[in-house]
Amino acid sequence: MSVLVKNHKDLVKNVDYNKEEAIKVLKKEFGQQFSDSKSVREQHTDTTTIHTSKLPDGVVFAENESDVRKTVEICNKYKCPIIPFGVGSSLEGHVNALHGGVSVDLNNMNKILSISPEDSLAVVQPGVTREQLNTYLRDTGLFFPIDPGANASLGGMSATNASGTNAVRYGTMKDNVVSLKVVMPNGEILKTANKAKKSSAGYDITRLMVGSEGTLGIITEITLKLYGIPEVIAGGRVTFPSIKNATEAVIMVIQSGIPVARIELLDQEQVKACNAYSKLDLPEEPLLLLEFHGSEASVKEQSELFSEIATDFGGGNFEWTSNNEQRNKLWKARHDAYYATKSCKPDDEYIATDVCVPISRLSDCIMETQVDLKKYNLFGHIVGHVGDGNFHVQLMVNPNDKNEIEALNFFLDRLSKRAINMEGTCTGEHGIGQGKKQYLIDELGPCVSFMKKIKSTFDPNNIMNPGKVF
Amino acid sequence: MSVLVKNHKDLVKNVDYNKEEAIKVLKKEFGQQFSDSKSVREQHTDTTTIHTSKLPDGVVFAENESDVRKTVEICNKYKCPIIPFGVGSSLEGHVNALHGGVSVDLNNMNKILSISPEDSLAVVQPGVTREQLNTYLRDTGLFFPIDPGANASLGGMSATNASGTNAVRYGTMKDNVVSLKVVMPNGEILKTANKAKKSSAGYDITRLMVGSEGTLGIITEITLKLYGIPEVIAGGRVTFPSIKNATEAVIMVIQSGIPVARIELLDQEQVKACNAYSKLDLPEEPLLLLEFHGSEASVKEQSELFSEIATDFGGGNFEWTSNNEQRNKLWKARHDAYYATKSCKPDDEYIATDVCVPISRLSDCIMETQVDLKKYNLFGHIVGHVGDGNFHVQLMVNPNDKNEIEALNFFLDRLSKRAINMEGTCTGEHGIGQGKKQYLIDELGPCVSFMKKIKSTFDPNNIMNPGKVF
Repeated sequence: MSVLVKNHKDLVKNVDYNKEEAIKVLKKEFGQQFSDSKSVREQHTDTTTIHTSKLPDGVVFAENESDVRKTVEICNKYKCPIIPFGVGSSLEGHVNALHGGVSVDLNNMNKILSISPEDSLAVVQPGVTREQLNTYLRDTGLFFPIDPGANASLGGMSATNASGTNAVRYGTMKDNVVSLKVVMPNGEILKTANKAKKSSAGYDITRLMVGSEGTLGIITEITLKLYGIPEVIAGGRVTFPSIKNATEAVIMVIQSGIPVARIELLDQEQVKACNAYSKLDLPEEPLLLLEFHGSEASVKEQSELFSEIATDFGGGNFEWTSNNEQRNKLWKARHDAYYATKSCKPDDEYIATDVCVPISRLSDCIMETQVDLKKYNLFGHIVGHVGDGNFHVQLMVNPNDKNEIEALNFFLDRLSKRAINMEGTCTGEHGIGQGKKQYLIDELGPCVSFMKKIKSTFDPNNIMNPGKVF
Repeated sequence: MSVLVKNHKDLVKNVDYNKEEAIKVLKKEFGQQFSDSKSVREQHTDTTTIHTSKLPDGVVFAENESDVRKTVEICNKYKCPIIPFGVGSSLEGHVNALHGGVSVDLNNMNKILSISPEDSLAVVQPGVTREQLNTYLRDTGLFFPIDPGANASLGGMSATNASGTNAVRYGTMKDNVVSLKVVMPNGEILKTANKAKKSSAGYDITRLMVGSEGTLGIITEITLKLYGIPEVIAGGRVTFPSIKNATEAVIMVIQSGIPVARIELLDQEQVKACNAYSKLDLPEEPLLLLEFHGSEASVKEQSELFSEIATDFGGGNFEWTSNNEQRNKLWKARHDAYYATKSCKPDDEYIATDVCVPISRLSDCIMETQVDLKKYNLFGHIVGHVGDGNFHVQLMVNPNDKNEIEALNFFLDRLSKRAINMEGTCTGEHGIGQGKKQYLIDELGPCVSFMKKIKSTFDPNNIMNPGKVF
C-alpha cells in the first residue's frame, strides 16, 4: 500500500542520525543475518497501513536477545533509527521506517520458553504468534484469549496493547501481560516484574512498555496469563430495529453482570455486504452476535437472560446454540465481515480505523459516523466490539481518486475528534502509530508532554521507532 | 507507633530543601486551612506504621484542586517536601514526613462528583472513602468492589495500588482506575485518560500513577469502574489437613475457571486465635473461606464444584450458604482475624506485612514462613488472599525488647527475599513505602534505575513524598 492519508508533523525532534555508519557495522557484525536487498527491505515497511513510509536501510534477523542488544547498542552508538518488526499486521504504520534505519525482524525469536499450568502462565519470545501459542497449549486445557483478528506476534500485540473481540471478558494485552524482558535504548536489559499475579512493588514499568509501540525499547520475552478452556462455548445472534436499541441491550448486559465473552455489532451496511458475500438472508438491520463461556448450565442461563434483554429492547428472535458447528454458522457474518467488505469493491484499498467511547455515547457515535459516511460519499461498514464501546470502520477507497482521499481525511479527522469529544479515545486498540499523533494531543493535552519526558529520558538519541506516537 | 524496624538508606539524593520559607508562605496563603500545631502535625505522620518518621513542619487542609496546585507550586518554588495524606491507613509508612515538609490533608476533598450507571463509572475526589462511595451507590444497584480492609480513601488506594480479599475476581486498583487527574510536581494538572473502557492512545500514565505512592504527583480526581451488585452472594468454609492441600485446592479452583469472588486462607495458628477470640470450635487446621457471586443457580453450581474439589484435596465438609446472616457466621473467623491476633498479646504492637508469589510456590512460601516464625520465636499468624498467591503475616511484637526487634528484622528480611527468590514480589498490595526500598532493588534490579529516571524527570527537586519507593 502507499500514501493515502496526510501525516501530521513529526513531533519529536529529528536527531542527527548517522545511519550509514551503523548499517556498515551491522552488516559486518551480522553477516547472513543482515540484509539490505531491496525486496527484503520492501517486506519490512508499509505492510498493512495507509501511511507514508521510506524503506529501512537494512534488516537484522535477530535470533536471540543478544542479537537484539547488539543491534540496539550499535544503533545507539551511531544514532540510527531502529524499528521492531513482528508479522507486520499493525494498522497504524508502527513498522514503517519513517526515517529509514534498521528494521529488527523478531520472527525467528519464536520459542515458547515455558508453560506453568499451576500458575496459568506462559513465557514466550516475541516472535511467537497467538495461534502458535494456542496450538501448543491445546493439550493443556489452557488457552490465551486475546484475539485481534490477525495472527499477530505476541511481541507486536504487547507493543501495541492489542485486544479484540473477547476483551469484554478477558481484557486487553495490558491486563494479560504479567512481565516483560525489554532491551532498552542504552542496551540495558530489564525484567519489568516477577511472576506474581499482582504486585505493588514500584512503578508499573510493565504497563508503561505495553502499548509504547516500540518507542521505549524492544520486547524480548513476555510472561502471559492463560485461562482454562471453557467447558462449553455458546454463540448466538439477534437483529435489532436500530443501533440505539442494540447498544441499549449491550449496556443492560454489562450492567446485569452477565459475563459475556464476546458481543459484536454489525451495522446495517455490513449486514448487507455479509448477506451478499456469505449467502445469508439476515434482515438488513443492526446485528448483535454473542458468545458465552462456562458450564452447560451457565451458558444456558446467560443465553436465556440475554434473550429476555434482547426482547426488552426490541430485538428479534435470539438464536443460540452450544453446538460448535452451528455456532460457526450463526457467527458466519462476523467471521466473513472483512472479506465481505473487501469483495464489495475489489479494486479499492482496504482501510480500517478504530475509536472507543463510554458505552452511553456509543449509539450516538456510531450513528453520527454513519451520517458522515454518507455525507462524504465514502464506502464503509461498521463492526464493533461493543461491550467495550469500541468500534471499527472498514473503508474501501480508491487511492488514485484525490477527491475521495480528501473526503477520507475529513472523515477520519471528524471520527477521532467525535470520539474524543464524547470523552472517549481516538484509538481503542490500534494505537497511535503514525496517523493519530495529533489526536493524542487533542485527547490528553498536557499529559503528552509527560509521555515525551519519559521518551526523552529513556531514549535521548530518539533511535527507538522514531516518528511514532509523538 | 514508633521506630521498630531498621530503615534502608534513602536512595534519592536529598535536595537542599528550604522548608522554612515554604512554610512561611503556605501559612500566609492558607490561613485557617494551615496548621503547624504539634497535635495536628502528630496526627499526620507515623499512623499505622513501624517505620521512623519526623513530624511534618505543617499541614495544609486542601479543599479543592486549586489548593493542591497552589501548595505544590509553593513547595516546588522553595523546595519543600510534600506528603499527600488520606486517612493514614497505609502500612508501609507512605504518609510519614521522613524529611519534614508539608502534609497535604485531602480529607475535605470528599465529593462524589458523578455516577454514570450506563457506563458503570464513578468520578470521585481523592478524600472519598470506599465505604462512603458504596453507601452512596446503595440505591443504584452498583458497587465498588476493591476492599483493602480499612475504610481507606480512594486517593490513597489509588496511590498505593490497594487490593484485598476480592482482587481474585475484581482485580486491583490498577484494574479499576480508568482515569486520574493529577497535580504534577511542576503544578501542571494532568488528565491521564478519557473515560473509554479501553484505550491504546499513548503511554499508560494512569497506571504509572496508580501505585506511585505519592512520589510523582497528587491525585485530585479519580474515575473508577463500578460493578452490578451480585444477585446472590454465597459464602462457605472448609478445613484442610495441610497448607499444601489447601493451596492445591485453590490452584484447581483457578484452573477450573470458577469465578470465585474471595478465597481466603487462615493458617493453623490464626484459626486457634480465632477460636479463642470469637468463641468458635473450628478444627485447628488450615481453613479456606470462599465467597461466590452470581445468580442463585450460578452460586449453587460454583459451590458444588468447589465442594468436589475440596474433597479431592482432602478437605473436610464444605459448609456453604447464600443466606446473609449465616454467611457472616461462617466467615466470622476471617472478619475477626485482626482482632483475634491483637487480643492474644494486647500489650504488644501489631505489625502486618505482605508478599505475593506465583501460586505454585504458595504452600512452600507459607510453610517456610511458619518455620521462620518458630525459629525466630516470633508471634505471628498468616492470612492469605490465596487466589492471587498473596498472603499477610500479622505479628505482635514488644517494641521494647531489642532481641525481639532484631529477630523481627531478620524474619521480615528473609520473608521478602523468599518471595523474590520464588519469582514473586516483596509486596502484593501494601507497597514499597519506607521499609521495602532495598527489596525493590533485589526484585527488579536495573528496572529500578528506569523508575528513578521517571522520578527525576517528573520531580527534579524531589519534593513529592521523598524517601518513599527509592
